[in-house]
Parts: sequence; C-alpha cells; structure tokens
Amino acid sequence: MEEFHASITVDQRLARQDIRGSIAHVDALKAARLLTAKEAQKIKDGLEAIRDRIQQGRFKFLKTDEDIHMAIESALTKLIGKHGGKMHTGRSRNDQVSLDMRLYAREQTRLVLNKIRALQRVLVDRAAQNLNTILPGYTHLQRAQPVLLAHHLLAYFEMLQRDHARFTANLDRLKECPLGAGALAGTTVPVNRHRVAKQLKFGDVTHNSLDTVSDRDFVIDFLSAASVLMMHLSRMAEDLILWNTREFGFVILPQEFCTGSSMMPQKVNPDALELIRGKTGRVYGNLMSLLTTMKALPLSYNKDMQEDKEPFFDSLDTVTQCLSVMTALFKDIRFDVARMLQATQEGFLLATDLADYLAKKGLPFREAHGVVGRLVRQAIKNGCGLEDLDLPTLKKASKFFENDVKDVLSIKAGVEARKSVGGTASDCVKKEIARARKIVMGNG
Amino acid sequence: MEEFHASITVDQRLARQDIRGSIAHVDALKAARLLTAKEAQKIKDGLEAIRDRIQQGRFKFLKTDEDIHMAIESALTKLIGKHGGKMHTGRSRNDQVSLDMRLYAREQTRLVLNKIRALQRVLVDRAAQNLNTILPGYTHLQRAQPVLLAHHLLAYFEMLQRDHARFTANLDRLKECPLGAGALAGTTVPVNRHRVAKQLKFGDVTHNSLDTVSDRDFVIDFLSAASVLMMHLSRMAEDLILWNTREFGFVILPQEFCTGSSMMPQKVNPDALELIRGKTGRVYGNLMSLLTTMKALPLSYNKDMQEDKEPFFDSLDTVTQCLSVMTALFKDIRFDVARMLQATQEGFLLATDLADYLAKKGLPFREAHGVVGRLVRQAIKNGCGLEDLDLPTLKKASKFFENDVKDVLSIKAGVEARKSVGGTASDCVKKEIARARKIVMGNG
Amino acid sequence: MEEFHASITVDQRLARQDIRGSIAHVDALKAARLLTAKEAQKIKDGLEAIRDRIQQGRFKFLKTDEDIHMAIESALTKLIGKHGGKMHTGRSRNDQVSLDMRLYAREQTRLVLNKIRALQRVLVDRAAQNLNTILPGYTHLQRAQPVLLAHHLLAYFEMLQRDHARFTANLDRLKECPLGAGALAGTTVPVNRHRVAKQLKFGDVTHNSLDTVSDRDFVIDFLSAASVLMMHLSRMAEDLILWNTREFGFVILPQEFCTGSSMMPQKVNPDALELIRGKTGRVYGNLMSLLTTMKALPLSYNKDMQEDKEPFFDSLDTVTQCLSVMTALFKDIRFDVARMLQATQEGFLLATDLADYLAKKGLPFREAHGVVGRLVRQAIKNGCGLEDLDLPTLKKASKFFENDVKDVLSIKAGVEARKSVGGTASDCVKKEIARARKIVMGNG
Amino acid sequence: MEEFHASITVDQRLARQDIRGSIAHVDALKAARLLTAKEAQKIKDGLEAIRDRIQQGRFKFLKTDEDIHMAIESALTKLIGKHGGKMHTGRSRNDQVSLDMRLYAREQTRLVLNKIRALQRVLVDRAAQNLNTILPGYTHLQRAQPVLLAHHLLAYFEMLQRDHARFTANLDRLKECPLGAGALAGTTVPVNRHRVAKQLKFGDVTHNSLDTVSDRDFVIDFLSAASVLMMHLSRMAEDLILWNTREFGFVILPQEFCTGSSMMPQKVNPDALELIRGKTGRVYGNLMSLLTTMKALPLSYNKDMQEDKEPFFDSLDTVTQCLSVMTALFKDIRFDVARMLQATQEGFLLATDLADYLAKKGLPFREAHGVVGRLVRQAIKNGCGLEDLDLPTLKKASKFFENDVKDVLSIKAGVEARKSVGGTASDCVKKEIARARKIVMGNG
Repeated sequence: MEEFHASITVDQRLARQDIRGSIAHVDALKAARLLTAKEAQKIKDGLEAIRDRIQQGRFKFLKTDEDIHMAIESALTKLIGKHGGKMHTGRSRNDQVSLDMRLYAREQTRLVLNKIRALQRVLVDRAAQNLNTILPGYTHLQRAQPVLLAHHLLAYFEMLQRDHARFTANLDRLKECPLGAGALAGTTVPVNRHRVAKQLKFGDVTHNSLDTVSDRDFVIDFLSAASVLMMHLSRMAEDLILWNTREFGFVILPQEFCTGSSMMPQKVNPDALELIRGKTGRVYGNLMSLLTTMKALPLSYNKDMQEDKEPFFDSLDTVTQCLSVMTALFKDIRFDVARMLQATQEGFLLATDLADYLAKKGLPFREAHGVVGRLVRQAIKNGCGLEDLDLPTLKKASKFFENDVKDVLSIKAGVEARKSVGGTASDCVKKEIARARKIVMGNG
Repeated sequence: MEEFHASITVDQRLARQDIRGSIAHVDALKAARLLTAKEAQKIKDGLEAIRDRIQQGRFKFLKTDEDIHMAIESALTKLIGKHGGKMHTGRSRNDQVSLDMRLYAREQTRLVLNKIRALQRVLVDRAAQNLNTILPGYTHLQRAQPVLLAHHLLAYFEMLQRDHARFTANLDRLKECPLGAGALAGTTVPVNRHRVAKQLKFGDVTHNSLDTVSDRDFVIDFLSAASVLMMHLSRMAEDLILWNTREFGFVILPQEFCTGSSMMPQKVNPDALELIRGKTGRVYGNLMSLLTTMKALPLSYNKDMQEDKEPFFDSLDTVTQCLSVMTALFKDIRFDVARMLQATQEGFLLATDLADYLAKKGLPFREAHGVVGRLVRQAIKNGCGLEDLDLPTLKKASKFFENDVKDVLSIKAGVEARKSVGGTASDCVKKEIARARKIVMGNG
Repeated sequence: MEEFHASITVDQRLARQDIRGSIAHVDALKAARLLTAKEAQKIKDGLEAIRDRIQQGRFKFLKTDEDIHMAIESALTKLIGKHGGKMHTGRSRNDQVSLDMRLYAREQTRLVLNKIRALQRVLVDRAAQNLNTILPGYTHLQRAQPVLLAHHLLAYFEMLQRDHARFTANLDRLKECPLGAGALAGTTVPVNRHRVAKQLKFGDVTHNSLDTVSDRDFVIDFLSAASVLMMHLSRMAEDLILWNTREFGFVILPQEFCTGSSMMPQKVNPDALELIRGKTGRVYGNLMSLLTTMKALPLSYNKDMQEDKEPFFDSLDTVTQCLSVMTALFKDIRFDVARMLQATQEGFLLATDLADYLAKKGLPFREAHGVVGRLVRQAIKNGCGLEDLDLPTLKKASKFFENDVKDVLSIKAGVEARKSVGGTASDCVKKEIARARKIVMGNG
Repeated sequence: MEEFHASITVDQRLARQDIRGSIAHVDALKAARLLTAKEAQKIKDGLEAIRDRIQQGRFKFLKTDEDIHMAIESALTKLIGKHGGKMHTGRSRNDQVSLDMRLYAREQTRLVLNKIRALQRVLVDRAAQNLNTILPGYTHLQRAQPVLLAHHLLAYFEMLQRDHARFTANLDRLKECPLGAGALAGTTVPVNRHRVAKQLKFGDVTHNSLDTVSDRDFVIDFLSAASVLMMHLSRMAEDLILWNTREFGFVILPQEFCTGSSMMPQKVNPDALELIRGKTGRVYGNLMSLLTTMKALPLSYNKDMQEDKEPFFDSLDTVTQCLSVMTALFKDIRFDVARMLQATQEGFLLATDLADYLAKKGLPFREAHGVVGRLVRQAIKNGCGLEDLDLPTLKKASKFFENDVKDVLSIKAGVEARKSVGGTASDCVKKEIARARKIVMGNG
C-alpha cells in the first residue's frame, strides 16, 4: 500500500522547487515571528545543504518517504534536529505542492518557449537560404500551385508562433502564488502572502484558498499547449517523411536522424521523424488523462490530483526532446532543389493563373474556371502542358485570351504573381523573413 | 457520395458570416477595379437579400449545394445573373471557410465570455448573501475545516475567472484576417488585405498563405477552453449533487431543475446537474476529435479539416447551454443554513487550530500535529468533541496548553482565524467580493 | 429547461425498438394476469398503429414529450384511453431504455458486420484479379521488398477480419435481456423475465438489477470496436491518398470519389478518402466522450448516462457510411500496374534476398547483412542496381557468392521466394485468397 | 539522437519473451538445416545463460544497445562468438517485436484475468456475509428503493464479469503467431511457421505478413479492456468514497488504505480509493495515445509503432495494482449495518411498492404513480412517513387501498417483493451468489 500511495519516485523532480518554496516560507515565518532569526537561518542552511546533496546525486530518496516534501523535511530534521518540524507551521502539503508545481511549470514553460524560438530561428535561416527554390504547393496532397520553399518553411514558423503565444499566455496565468492557502481555508499564521509571492517572483497571490488547492488548470494549460505543438510537429514530420520518400525525393535527411533495418541492408529509415509523429499520441493521451482525472471532483483537494505529475513530466520531456531533434534536423537537412523544381512541371500548376487572367479580362471567375478546366482536359488528352497550347487553341476556348497570356504561363511568374501580403511572391516572403527575424531576435 | 462530401447540413450555421465576408471581398474587388461600382452594388444587394431570406427562414438549403459557400453563390447567380460568378475572383473556398469560421469563433467566443460573466455575477450575489453561513470545507470529501459558504462560492468565481482569461486569450489569437490567402499560395488579384481586415474588424492579416489555409488552431483553442470550462462546471455540479443528497442536505434545488421518476413517485432527481456533469464527456470528446483529425496532416489544406465544424458547434452549444442552466440554477437555489452549520459540529474541524495554537506557543508544528492527533483519538474514544476536553486533559497532552486555548475552540473563531489573503475569514471574503464585483462590472 | 432535459430529438431513433420491447412487456403482464387479454390486445394494436404512423413519417414528435418512451406512451393513451397507462406497470424507464438501446445495438452491430463482410468481399475479388501485379512493399514509407498487390489487399482483409471478430464478440456480450430490472432493484410484478427474453431473442436475462440499469458497457464496446475499425480505414485511406499522388501514381480513383477546387481548375482531390481519414477523429472522440461520462458515477442509474446516445449514433452512422464508401471505391478503383512495377526497380528491394542468399550459404546473417550493406553503397556510388554488379565484384565482397546468385536477383524471384505461410509468394497468396473466400461466403 | 531512438529503457521488460521466441526460432532454423544441431544448442545455451543473468539482475542494459533485441544478440555474440549472428537469419525485428509483445500480452492478460477473479471472489464472500444487511439503493444519488448490501456487491461482480469476458475475448484474438512474417513480406528461409507456433503455444499463425508487422490491435484491445475495467473500479471507488463520508457513514475503511493530513491532525483520508479513481485518467489517456499514434499510418511497419509499449506497460501496471488494492480493501472493509438500515427509514423508499400495490389492484400504473406522488407530498407536509398514513387517508387518495396495504409498507417487505430474476429479494440474491461462486470456482 505504501508504494501505491507514494509519489516520491515521480515528484522528486520537484526537489529544487520544494526547497526554494520552503526557504521563502521560512522567511515569512521569521517575519511573522514564528521563527527566530537563528532558527530560520538554521533551517535555511539545512535546506541548502540538502539541495546541494541532491544536485550532486548524494541524496537517497526512500519509498518510505511518501513524497518529496516529506523526504526533504525528514532529511532536514535528521540534519538539524526537531526544529526542522517548525518549517511546516502555517502550511499544508496542499498549498506546498501547488507552489512546487507552479514554480516548476513556470520554469519549464520558459524552457519550452526558448526551444520554440530556437526551432523558429533555424527555420528562418533555412528560409532565407531558399528564396529561389520553387516546389509544388499541395492541397489534398495534390500539386496545386508553385510556391517558394522559403514560403513553405515560414508556414512552420507561423505555426510555432502560435505555440509561442499559447505558452506565453499560460505563463500569464501562472503569475499567482498559492502559498498561504493552507490545507483549504487559508492559514491562521500571519504570514505576509504578498511578500512570499514577491520573493518567489510571482506578480500576485491567489485569491481564494479553496480554489487554490483544488486547481490544476495550469497543468492542463501546459498539456493543451503541448498537444497543439505536437500536432504541429507531427505535420512537419509528415511533410518531411513524404519528401524523404523515393517517390517525392525532395530532401536528404542527415544520417544521424535515420536508422537501418535489422533485416534489410539497403534501408535508411527516417526514424526520428516517425518517432516525433508517433509521440503525438502520448501527448494527446496525457491531456486526456488529466482532464479525465479532474472531471467532477468535488472541492477542494482530492488525492486524485496527485495524478497530475506524470502526464505533465512526460509531455514536457516529449516536447522538449522533439523540439531539439526537429531543430537539429532542420539545421542539417538538404533539399533536392532540382527534384523540387522538376515536380512543378507536371500537374498544371498554372491553371489558376490562367483563370485569374481571364477574370481580370472581365470574364466572371466561375466561367473562367470552367474554361480553364476544359483546357486542362484538352492538354491531358494531348499529353502536353497548358503552356504548350497555342493562342488559337486558347482563343477558341475563350475570346478573352490575348497575346499577353504567355506572361502568366511560367512557374516563376506563377510564384511572383501572388504578391498579396503573406503570399508566395519573393518580395512578400522576404518581408516575412525580415519580420520573423525581428521576432526571434527579440527573444534571443 | 454527394451526401458524404456535403457539409451543407452542418455549415449553414455560417451563412451570416459567409455573406459578411463576401461583402468585404466584393468591396476589395471593387477597390482593385475588378468589379465596377455597379457590379459590386448589385452583388452586395443580392447577398443582403439572401441574408434576409435566410434570417426569415425562407431560404431553402439543398444537399446538392455541397456547402454554404456554394449555396449562397448559386442563390446569388440565380438572383442577379452570371455576374454573381465574379464574386469568387481572387478567392478560394480555403481562405473563405477560414474567414467564416474565424468570424463565427470570434462572435461566439464573445458570447461565451458574456455567459461566464453572468454566472460569475450570480455567484458574487449569492456569496454576498451568505457571508454568515458556515459549512464544513472538505478535502478528500472529508470534513476538514469550517469555511464560509461565500468563500466556497467565490472558489467557483475564481475557476470561471481563469476560463474567462482563457477565452480572452483565444480572442487575442483570432485577430488575423485570413482572406487573401487564396487556395494556398496567396492571390494574383491586387486586393488590399489590410483594408479587408479592417472592414471586418480584424487587427491584422495572416502572414503566410500556406499556414492560413492549413490552420485550425483557433478551433482547437476553443475546444480546449471549453473542456476546462466543462471540467469546472462538472465540479460545481458534483458539489451540488452531493449537497442535494438526503445525506448532506445542504441545498434545496429549484423544482424546474429536477425531474421525477417514471416508476418511483417520491423521486426528485437533480437531472440538470447530472446532465451538465455528463456533458463534460462530449466536450472532451470533441477536443480529442479535432486533435486526432489534425494529427500528421501534410500541408496545406486537406479535406479532413472539414471535420472541424461539428465538434466546434457541439461544444459551443453545450457550454452556452450549461452556463445558462447553471446561472439560472444558482440564482434560485436555496441553502439549508442550519444543516450546514450542524455539519461543522462533527468531525473535529478545529484540530488544525489547536495544532496551530501549540505551534504559535513554540512547539514545532510536527510535534503539535502529533499531540492533537492523540487528543482527537482520545475524544473519539470519549465520544466527545475537542472543545469538550478540559484544560487538565489538554495540559497532560502538552504543557503548552493554557487558558486561552478556549478562544480557538469555536467554529466561528476557526473561520475568522484564517485571515491571510484569500482565506475564509469574513473580512478577507468581503474584500474578495468587492474585487469580484469590480471584475464583473467592468464587463457588464 | 425542458429542452435541456429532453432527449426526444435524439432518442426518437429508438422508436421501433421501444415499441417492440413494450409489446413483449405487455405480453408478460398479460401472462402475469396484470392485463386482461383484451387490454393487452388493445395496447398492442395501439402500439402497432403508432409504429406504422412513425414509419410513414406521420408521427409528430414534440419537445414536450421529453423522451421517446413518453412520446409513445402519450400517443398510446391518446389513442386507446387511460388503459394505456397500464403498460408501464412493473417497468421503469431505466430498464426500458436499456432494453431499447440493447435491441438497437444488436441490430446495428449486425448491420456493421454485414458491411465489413461486403468490403472484405470486394477486397478478395480485387486481390484475385491482381495476383500478378507487383509493387514495392514499404516499411517506414521506404521501399523495402517487392510484394504482390493481392498480398497488400489481403492485409486489409485481415485487419477487417479482426474488426469482424471484435463486433462479433460484442454481440456475444449483448445476449442478456435487461427488462425486469425495474428502476434499480427488480420488479414486484411477477413477470417471467426469461419468457420476455426469449420473445425478444435474447439468450439470457441480466443477473443483477442494480448493475443492469447502471451498465453502458455495451455502448462503449461498440465505440471501441468502431474506433479500431476507423483506425484501419484511416490506414487504407492513407495508402490510397499516397498512391493517388502524382509522385506515387499507383491508382486512378473513380471520379465520383473526387471533387474539384473552387479556385484551381485542374484539381481532382481525393475528398472521400480524406473524409474517411478525417472522420477517425470523431469516432475516437465519441469513445472518449462516453468513457469520460461514465467515469466515477456512483451506482445505480444517473442521468449522465442519457449522454450515451449521441456518440453511439454518430459513430454508428460514421462507420456504416465509411464502410459503404470504401467498398464502392475499391470496387471501381484502377491500379496503374506499370507504375507499380516500375517503382520496384529502384530502391535495392532485393538486398534482403542477397543477404539471405549468403546466410543460406553459411555466413552468419549479421555478417551477410553487413556485406550487402556495403554492396548497396557501392551500387549507389556506381549509379547502378544490385543486379548490375558482376560476380567478381560480388566475390570480392564475400567468397560465398557463386554463380547461382543470379537466381535471386530478380523482382519476380524476390516475390516468389517468400513462401512461408502468409508470405507474398503467389502460391501463398492464392491459398489465402481461397481461405478468405470461404470466410466471406460463410456470412454472405 | 541515440537516446531519442532507443527503446531499451522501456522494452527490457520483454527480455524473457524475446529469449523464449529466439529459442523457438533457433529450433526452426535447425529444422530447416540453416543451423547445425551443435550451433543451435550453443545459441540456446547462450540465450539461457543470458536469461539467468537478467533474472538475477546481473545483466547490464546499455543505452547503446538501442533495444532489447540488439541487447540480447550483442550479449550472445560476446558470449558465444560470431555464430550468434546466425540467430537472426530469416527474421526481422518487425516480426520479432510483434512476437515478444504478443507473448507478453498473452501472459499479462492471464494475470489480469486472475486478479479479476480474485476480486470477484472477495465480493461474493462479502455478499454472502451480508444477506441481511439492507441499505438504500440509489438512482441519481437519491434514495430510491431498499436493497440488500449483498445485491449491491453482486452488481460489482457483474461488472467484473464483463471485464473478464472482455479480456478473455482479447486472448482469443491473441492466438496467432507472427514469427515468419519477416520484415514485411515473409521470409525466404524455409522455417515451419506452424511448428514455431505450436512450440510457443499459439493456436495458429498469422495469415498475412504485411498485416502482421503493421498490426497493434492486440495492444489497443488490452488498453480498451483496461479502460472499461478502470471505469468500473472508479465507480466502486466513488461509491466507497461516498459511503466513507461522515454524511453517509456506511463503511469504515481499513486503516492501511487511508492516510493523514500534513496539516490537519484529525483527517483520515481514503487515499487509496481516490488514487484508483484518479488513475482512471491515465488508463483512458493510454488508450487515446495509441489510437492516435496508429491513426492513418501507411502500411506496413512504421517506427511510430514503437510508441506502443509505454501506454501498454503503464495501463497494465495500473490495473493490476488497482485490482490488488481493491481486493485487499474489500476483504477488510467494515460495513456500518445500523447506519445503512437507518438510512432506509427516510426518503419514502416504499413509494413504488405502494404504486405497484394499486396497479395490481387494477388502477393503471400511471394513475397509481400520481396517487402515490400526492401521498408523498402529504406525508412530507405532515412530517411523517408513508407507513404513518392511516387507511382512511389512503382510501381518500384512492378507493383501491385496502387493509392489506400494510403488508407492503415495510422495508423488509420492499426488499423481498422484488423477486424477479436478478432482483434484490434474498432468495434471488442467494441464487446469484451460488451462480457467482460456480463462476469463480471454475477459474480458481
């Protein structure tokens, strides 16, 4: 049973935060004259000694310690005597664990934000290098219109930009210090909660003790943001796995991101990307796990909430690892520029341009769309491209065609014609690269 | 097959947004001289006529129309002739549907925000009326410490406050106008995207066309926030279902939120609350649904994304309905103040106060905790409360007990002693009520 | 509030089952002498009249009717007078709705089973037609070894075979009749439960009344099996979407499963397949929905359980639709046999055969794997295939190579060499086709 | 990167199964004359030595070993020389890992089945001891009708009975041996797959190699069954948590399943039950995790599938632990029989009996229901029970009331009146206990 209750194998990750919180609490008890300066100092020295021991791997976590809070308090009492027991005055494990988790979530959210920026930085760099690389843009996995590779890479940048905003908004909601909520109703000890909050770099204190010990929203917020982030990474991975097939052949993956087969000597498999894609599952699962656990729990604290830690730690480890791998991979990936360009030659990627041409000449777009559709079918029948149809043929399809139609019938022209903001024309993409650089620099 | 592809039965909800977006697009085409003033006016008049017809329920949606965009365009062409077909110049269904969904999400998010505020307002009112009502605060569903009912109600307020912040942060991320992204690569038509954005009250335009048509983050954001909101509502429902049992007996539910049994004539069942709790499932399910759909989709648009609408509409309907029901219910619920107070008499709810008393006298808290634990066991054996133990008995347990111990041994004193910020002491609660009022007024 | 409680808009789908169950119940009441033969007949006639009216679409469901049970009972009372009220003797809505749902689940599970068989039948037919078509088998989406298209199609058959087993096992667990469990504790009326069960074609009755009204496992079983089935269909869809790209080019989809683009005249998008893939999300979501709803509900019936219907109906509709679409699609899909064969020429698909050759000659497989790995790299450098390396070159790599190595270096030989049971050799595949035919015939 | 790819920290749990499978494969290679008797023996001796070393904790797993298969093969080669490399002839990690997982799933499913039986056994025992204990049966958490405690405990038995059937059905689907599927297309080596299957106690071999290496249904089946099982355990936990409140007071939990509070000396919290309830989340999450991972993977093997292990192991550990805890808890839990009986006195639990009485006398049930409803309201007004209303009062409400109404107005009579199969009458319950005993004995 002890083992079933115990969380020490999991929550020992919170050791540093627990000690940091205890030191702030001890300072508050001293200010409230519940500890003498001497007692406080002794406790703090003891806590710091324990922290050092943990950091050096010299601390022995015992299953009998139940959780990290008891493990540290026991060690403290062993070290400095029963005065260690004064540390827990005016505090409960309920507000204590909430504090530890929030401190940890805040710190780790910042780490994730940095890793997002690192990936964005690489993407901008690679985009800047690929302003002349053209490949087919796809919808429904069918070739649709030509785009710059830089433009495609900046799409990833934008996805990550929203992830960054999401984790940043989470940080905003992590600004309240829970210590002082006690077990559920507040504390009878005159600790100055605002002072503690300030010392721990929180902007405010929580405003309702019952809610404080009942609340795990901030963990769910992390798990939600991590889920969307993984969804984004899974899409990038999918693109690259496709591009890495012999059929697409758009990229050459750096060797260290691939592994071989135990049976097939020729295989070079994009394992790292597949793992990123596959790990999306566990991050979604972790979100569902905590949402389920929290459903319909009566106020205030319930032991069920101890189950918040493993999904949190697991999603955290997964996203930081995946971000690092993706960043390293994008740094070294090579693009087969020739294959990409070649792929734009087939698939009538300029059909829209032709329809737009007609629309600009005055034909209602719906009709223009119909005209070009017929031309495409004709070209298929002839086994040629749209650019191979001569003017008389075009004119037969619509009287709006004129000599200047040639200007729109090149891949390069197709790219450059899309010059609305956020479009794939190289000027637009350059502007977005400049904007992106400014963003990633700001957080360098 | 037509039926399998069609989304018209679902997306007809976007009619108003679709027309609003088309009008802005027509204005942009006019400014770009792709429509004459006359053509533009004719189209806009037609669209408005269609909107009126829809609002009056006189518009017939046909399954053959595939989706809301085609339904409206067909109706328009029927109404004003083939010039209706010019409306789609420089636009794709991909950026069009993104616009419609964003307009709708923005509008409905605001509705949800208002409904959250309405519930918060009722909670503050009921809290203000219950500043003298004391009930047991629970942890692990065990009586723990006495709290004010007002304090308990404000815990709900705080939960909703985070929901409000979450939906508000979603709104922040909905500030970019997607129109002009075209099918995937931007548009060749010189529409002024910023102008369109401004007309539709967006703060900015999206910055990458591939990402724009691939992105459903804003729907997932809604579904995530809705999931946490439902988790909160399920917890309130659980509290009230428990309080409504004969065993707790803390509340009398308004009759209209209850139903009878087809077999058992005496039954009065809290159906509304059970449904709120039960509907948490569908809202979680909707989140999982879209996350799954979006996993590992290659860029850019894929038809899978059409599956974003039903989970969105269903979660939206569910949360708005549940918020309304909960608001009405809290308005009229009656509290059995006497039962609540009586429940505080049993369960040694002042044990912490006694331990805190000793800790303040100088006994390390851990030891104080042990002393009081023994006293509780003694009281159980004697069949009495802690307040019934006389001073000699107490002194035998610890020499730190003195005459003034009586001051801490009353439920009222127990409540008032927790006067740290966010604690249950009535002064603290009053302050929080004032703060809460300010918050809900600001958004009145 | 009425609207919030009401389930009539959803559960009207159970009308036929509700009436069927009521007729059996009325017979039981008659046998128990709680209804005279005349009363029973009158009620049954009334119920049948109502059923006819519903089937003919002449029945008006009112929101004020709350649920299907009340709707029918009200109509009955209106039709035959207050004796209609005798029908509910000894019954509660709790056992009644459980019966309706089980009857419905049983019937619909059988429908799903038939649809699975229909898809399997098409797959076997198409496999039989493609015993000579060779394409690359993939692992990690990299070409790995040559396989028969028939073999690939039979892999789908096997996936569906497990789905069939899963739904069949569900049927086994649906063999108990719930009627007679009453509201929760059984009924005081001497109905013969076994008789009712027999009349409704159940094999047994449920054995605990509390459990009977608390149980929705059979719905979850359906949702679980549907989730795995959709996972399988999503994998088939993914294969076909890939094969339908210009890059793979292995299939030509029948036109009715594709749609065009509103902007791009050349596009032919595999919408049906994308929708199948995308709808996996909603079916997973429905499973999560009901699991969440049922979590931690105290015994016995709770209103939360009313939320079982929509996920069930939605998953049911989705899987039956997707199975039908997939069956029709496989019937008419065309395979580009030449493109498939051509794709086996590149990618060193015979490397394993070469290593197996060496292993059979006595070289430890690990070493053989290493030798062939080096040969592959050499071939890449030379820009040739393994079959282009001459014997001296091979011998230099390993002395175990002899003249007979040529026999293994053909794609056809590679296919035929894998003749272990379940392998891709044509004899094996023929045997499996025969076995598959026997399976699908049995359930024809 | 090595760390990102490696699964050795997780899959080392499969060591025993991996060795067992390798021994069978070696025997097959010997029979196919690809290994001499001597070579085969040497490899098998080596494998057994490694197995012993692992079991004794003397085996060092290195991260550089990538996975359990390579770890064991490396150790083997180190032990017996390069002939160890012959073991992998005709085998791929793809069919090997599938075999290991299936062997493990089969073994662990049996363990779960045994643990379910153990819990069922305790429930039957406790039911047999509580054939005279009456408590209120609840619907909507409102007192509904009196039931035997034995009846309530048997409801749990039935829930578990379905879990047992579900895991048993899973075993049925685990009867096919995957070895011989090779990497994806079968093997060129003439191993006798049926022989291997027999040696490993499988009933059959898999019938399609592509499917074999692509399939993780059997893991999902485990995760699904585990989810429903946890849902059941969460409901039992919820009942007991409620019964353990001071408000219900129906049970006294054994001390070892409770823990105290760090702050509140009086608290005895039902932590074990809360953890069981809370852990439902992670088991649901694991199911969602693997379903997500498998969605839309193209055939055949993809590295994503490596992510099957952690959710499987975690759900396995969770359910076995929770079953053990629940079994131990039910063994020692004490029921407060007096409190239970007392609770049946309030709440008009006999109202249905009164309505049934009238229905049997000939009043249509709907009317009887109305009559008793009015009597209940009258009793509430009078502050008395239904049994306190005298005959004249009853007769005024309905002329059908006669002297014999007294016979139905006792709690005991209410219990005994429900004697349809599966009802709460003691004779029925006794029969079900006998049936249950037979079931659990069969699997003793």
